[in-house]
Amino acid sequence: MTDTVVRPSTPATNRRTPAGGAPTAARTAAEAGEPRIDIDTVGSMLLGTWADTRREVRELIKDPAYWRIDGQTVAEHRDRVMGQVRLLAQNNGSSRALPEEYGGLNDNGANLAGFEELVLADPSMQIKSGVQWGLFGSAVLQLGTEEHHKRWVADIRDAKLPGAFAMTEIGHGSDVAAIGTTATYDPATEEFVINTPFRAAWKDYLGNAAVHGQAATVFAQLITNGVNHGVHCFFVPIRTADGELLPGVQSEDDGVKGGLNGIDNGRLAFDHVRVPRTNLLNRYGDVAADGTYSSPIESTGRRFFTMLGALVQGRVSLDGAATIASALGLHIAITYGNQRRQFDSGAGTDEVVLLDYGKHQRRLLPLLAQTYAQFFSHDELLRTFDGVFSGRTDTPEERENLETLAAALKPLSTWNALATLQEAREACGGSGFMAENRLVGLRSDLDVYVTFEGDNNVLLQLVGKRLLSDFARQFKGADAATLAKYAVGQTAGKVFHGAGLRSLGQRVADFGSTARSVELGLRAEHQHELLSDRVEQMVSDVAGALRPASKLPKDQAAALFNRHQAELIEAARAHGELLQWEAFSDAVKATENDDTRQVLTWLRDLFGLHLIERHLAWHLINGRLSTQRAAAVTKYIDRLCARLRPHAQDLVDAFGFEPEHVRAPIASGLEQQRQDEARAYYADLEARGEAPVPEKSLKPKKR
Amino acid sequence: MTDTVVRPSTPATNRRTPAGGAPTAARTAAEAGEPRIDIDTVGSMLLGTWADTRREVRELIKDPAYWRIDGQTVAEHRDRVMGQVRLLAQNNGSSRALPEEYGGLNDNGANLAGFEELVLADPSMQIKSGVQWGLFGSAVLQLGTEEHHKRWVADIRDAKLPGAFAMTEIGHGSDVAAIGTTATYDPATEEFVINTPFRAAWKDYLGNAAVHGQAATVFAQLITNGVNHGVHCFFVPIRTADGELLPGVQSEDDGVKGGLNGIDNGRLAFDHVRVPRTNLLNRYGDVAADGTYSSPIESTGRRFFTMLGALVQGRVSLDGAATIASALGLHIAITYGNQRRQFDSGAGTDEVVLLDYGKHQRRLLPLLAQTYAQFFSHDELLRTFDGVFSGRTDTPEERENLETLAAALKPLSTWNALATLQEAREACGGSGFMAENRLVGLRSDLDVYVTFEGDNNVLLQLVGKRLLSDFARQFKGADAATLAKYAVGQTAGKVFHGAGLRSLGQRVADFGSTARSVELGLRAEHQHELLSDRVEQMVSDVAGALRPASKLPKDQAAALFNRHQAELIEAARAHGELLQWEAFSDAVKATENDDTRQVLTWLRDLFGLHLIERHLAWHLINGRLSTQRAAAVTKYIDRLCARLRPHAQDLVDAFGFEPEHVRAPIASGLEQQRQDEARAYYADLEARGEAPVPEKSLKPKKR
Repeated sequence: MTDTVVRPSTPATNRRTPAGGAPTAARTAAEAGEPRIDIDTVGSMLLGTWADTRREVRELIKDPAYWRIDGQTVAEHRDRVMGQVRLLAQNNGSSRALPEEYGGLNDNGANLAGFEELVLADPSMQIKSGVQWGLFGSAVLQLGTEEHHKRWVADIRDAKLPGAFAMTEIGHGSDVAAIGTTATYDPATEEFVINTPFRAAWKDYLGNAAVHGQAATVFAQLITNGVNHGVHCFFVPIRTADGELLPGVQSEDDGVKGGLNGIDNGRLAFDHVRVPRTNLLNRYGDVAADGTYSSPIESTGRRFFTMLGALVQGRVSLDGAATIASALGLHIAITYGNQRRQFDSGAGTDEVVLLDYGKHQRRLLPLLAQTYAQFFSHDELLRTFDGVFSGRTDTPEERENLETLAAALKPLSTWNALATLQEAREACGGSGFMAENRLVGLRSDLDVYVTFEGDNNVLLQLVGKRLLSDFARQFKGADAATLAKYAVGQTAGKVFHGAGLRSLGQRVADFGSTARSVELGLRAEHQHELLSDRVEQMVSDVAGALRPASKLPKDQAAALFNRHQAELIEAARAHGELLQWEAFSDAVKATENDDTRQVLTWLRDLFGLHLIERHLAWHLINGRLSTQRAAAVTKYIDRLCARLRPHAQDLVDAFGFEPEHVRAPIASGLEQQRQDEARAYYADLEARGEAPVPEKSLKPKKR
Repeated sequence: MTDTVVRPSTPATNRRTPAGGAPTAARTAAEAGEPRIDIDTVGSMLLGTWADTRREVRELIKDPAYWRIDGQTVAEHRDRVMGQVRLLAQNNGSSRALPEEYGGLNDNGANLAGFEELVLADPSMQIKSGVQWGLFGSAVLQLGTEEHHKRWVADIRDAKLPGAFAMTEIGHGSDVAAIGTTATYDPATEEFVINTPFRAAWKDYLGNAAVHGQAATVFAQLITNGVNHGVHCFFVPIRTADGELLPGVQSEDDGVKGGLNGIDNGRLAFDHVRVPRTNLLNRYGDVAADGTYSSPIESTGRRFFTMLGALVQGRVSLDGAATIASALGLHIAITYGNQRRQFDSGAGTDEVVLLDYGKHQRRLLPLLAQTYAQFFSHDELLRTFDGVFSGRTDTPEERENLETLAAALKPLSTWNALATLQEAREACGGSGFMAENRLVGLRSDLDVYVTFEGDNNVLLQLVGKRLLSDFARQFKGADAATLAKYAVGQTAGKVFHGAGLRSLGQRVADFGSTARSVELGLRAEHQHELLSDRVEQMVSDVAGALRPASKLPKDQAAALFNRHQAELIEAARAHGELLQWEAFSDAVKATENDDTRQVLTWLRDLFGLHLIERHLAWHLINGRLSTQRAAAVTKYIDRLCARLRPHAQDLVDAFGFEPEHVRAPIASGLEQQRQDEARAYYADLEARGEAPVPEKSLKPKKR
């Protein structure tokens, strides 16, 4: 038996079967004779609310001028990307979010949707344009007032005034509130003195800082009349149009990075650099000529968060870009896995197509399901963002929801992108490691997405905090006994409303009555219950554990929290996963075509089960699944993988990438050509009677 | 309460505390007043059996001539690395494994130990030298006979004859037996005709093929008198000393890769290239002048594996190199994590050192434990390798054990290296993404380690096959009832002996009697029982599931196997983890110093619990852990992390890396200097009474 089950090491024997071989199962939906998705319909679903913008940008970036060229030096790549940003500006790439008076569409959702698609051309171009318009430009637009807009917006839009967004410091990454740069007001000259008091306060990792930037929006502690009013943003010229640094400004080059080398990241420091008082971007805080500070927002904390509010669009767009990059990786790996053959099957016929291997399906199909979930949850996030930024739903509550949603989804999708691109690269073997096949380049470039625009763990901790406050709000005024009873309960009930959780059964349909035993207790409504109960229970557990903190001295309270930090982050992650699952389920429910809905339901189930399997121990320890049902989870996933295997190509084709977006030779049909040529060669040799006889076949058989 | 527990977003308040702050726990073993490792002793343990060679090579590569320079073009990097390989040859880097008559030490273990250390200088240099001496040179040495040695070994050793190892083809990676290149014997001229019959049979991904190689050891199907005798190896000149391709030889450049860009990987094809009959490396198979084939090994299968046997050294050495790279990554991240501060603690004192965060400990310390385990299991692998290759223990059984051991450990350590380097990079935030801090470069270079020298999943499948045959062997002749009974049993007993498993209690000591409730049932002997029972049960489960295969038609048997492929790979992984755990435990047991042993025991426990936690659902589903005890696993890990935190610096210092090996500015003490400078600045401001007052402090407190 063992001799027939593992084949990697059997020398080539019979290679003389006609082309075709014996697949272990159907490879296409047509072969399977099953319901099959309508690729165009699903394609439109995935493109989402701003489908037109996405199509427009995808059309634009078919022009090779926007593509990455592998092997360029850092200097060449930087030049090319700066040119691409100018080219984008000429093609309306910079104006979608701008008010009409600046030639814009005033369409924030479209702006981010278009931005996200740029990842297909070159992530460096994407992020460089994000620095210019999404960070530097947004700071002027969102934190500045009319005078500032008039002076700088048009030039920023046209990339005539390239700028850096100087927030992060060497000594302070995600902790912006603690930055060391100071902006001290001097009433004698009506100027702010921007100063970097020590090395750790150098601004760092700033795109446009090393070479191209002529100005920077500099975040600094605003000090006037001896009072520190906290972090504010200042417009500070840093270079002449010829690239000469201005007096008092120092710049260093960050040099080579792990990716995104088309961006000139660098450091900036300011040695008592003076800017006019009116260079304070004064929408949320201003200093009068005599040094008097004023702000429309009294609370320093709320003022700080309001000023940083524009940053959320970075997180929102990274969620989308990471999802598109994951989709591209899967398109490449699944297309190749459907053509590439390796090892004979042991059935003595022909070499096996990679995607026919059980393990290969297991590696890629759950990631495909996850990527689908991300498309749908991202579109929901983008709509929330657009509502708030357009002003339609701009309430403090919705802003907070948006912040929480972005902070929950961006970490998941950016980490998933790295894992997905890596699995895709490994699934393509040595070919996957070649730059021309794009997987390694995308992975390198996206690496930094997990720590910039808010470190993923820090963001999840913010989500955890929100979940804890929502939780606490439910019990305001409840006595200790009620709370204690609650904390130990196995079924915590539905206590979250604010952060995007939907209550069970409200929007989630029961998608059928197939009653195979393995699926029993693992269908849609059960998936939802398991995923949402987990969030609630985890938050409840952390809250219970932290309850003594309010009565402890501060240092002991901090230590208590520290012991539960990892759990809180896990709870936040569970919350994000639930949001993704819900968005996927909503999309399935809204699907009108029966066949399409059937296949997407399988895919959604695979996503749900994949999440449940990942946290299976938790469900067992907390009594949510019996050991029998837990064992069934894995079997069900195996079954779903086999069921979805014939649909894999349809499902990646629905991403709608065209050859100019894919550009990976291994996903171009080249592999199929090579396979066909090799098979024809052997068939021909056989037909002509010229095939050599294997030595083995001459020997007496041993059995 | 919730306000005090999450601090990422609190604006800077009191920064006026004197340097020092309030750690949540001790940061050094000295502060903790606890047992503490003897760094030198542990350092020697980690260097292992060939410590002297490792020290010698580490000393050699302190010379900057061996270091990687970030940002070089591919062409520059390739030139530099070729030069480095010549420099290594001049410094005895190429001769440790050679017989004495070629100036060698005939020391295979030392050869690989020295090779592994090169990863610290530049992985490209490491792998390029591995291509030259470990693959190309080894093929001549191991597959050739005396005449071949006399003709080529000295020039190969001196890097005067750079060569490619032409095994892999575009169409066949890990499946070497199925390659398409042919070597057809022509008795008329006593030559072999080397031919590439179709595009998929082009040799690909070969180091030295694009630029520097002057010859190649080409694997091809040996055909003589109309019979295919399977894959054999031929010495084929490909370029003149001036770099001109020889007639009939074609070469293409693989171009930019995801890493290792100092190596000139490329493709080779042969258009009826004729080489003399004596260019067949004929140790295991020869063709007489008249075309008669002969071989000392009758079985074609065994002959194939014997010829590929030398390849195991690649796998062995990658296990070591991946472990060293992981250690370097952890050295950098933990050193930085011990100096870098971010966010105040909520205790109102000072910013917190990263490694004081519970989550940060959780991210890095289990990986540190894992890396320790890998050092010890690698040394055991290297000793097994040396025994076989020196001839001391060169039996078919030991060769098979060596193959299995290497196939089990290489996948784990190479995957772990990618995960460890990535976690280290993220733990260092934006700094981790800068090439100068080395984490991204190491990760990119090591990426391909998981698919070359045998794809990790293919290797694990080989291990799974071995486990299945060991399992079957136990039951040879047993009747079906016995087998069935066995298959359903919960305690399978100890059935493995061959593949390196040790029986419970034989070598594993009970390391103490600390009887804290959380540790109950999770101490050394229980860890071993859980880990080894899991391997046995998983193998038994797969074997039971596959039993019907022997009675099925081949295609159905193949399909049945395919459904259990992922499980078999998981069982093999579990086996590898057990081997690592056992090696770590043996090392702990052999430690004489009580304090050192105590700390290493905690670290080993962390590794064991980390493995158990990773597979917790399995242990629950299979009734090996109660839900209560399973819940205790995570708590115990948290406790071990806190316990080990003060020892973290000692444990990475024990790796023994010197500044010339580390070279990452963030791990050089620079961060500490910056922190100290910033703190001194604020203290001085305070002392001079010039610190601005926070706006917040001027307002009436709300509570």
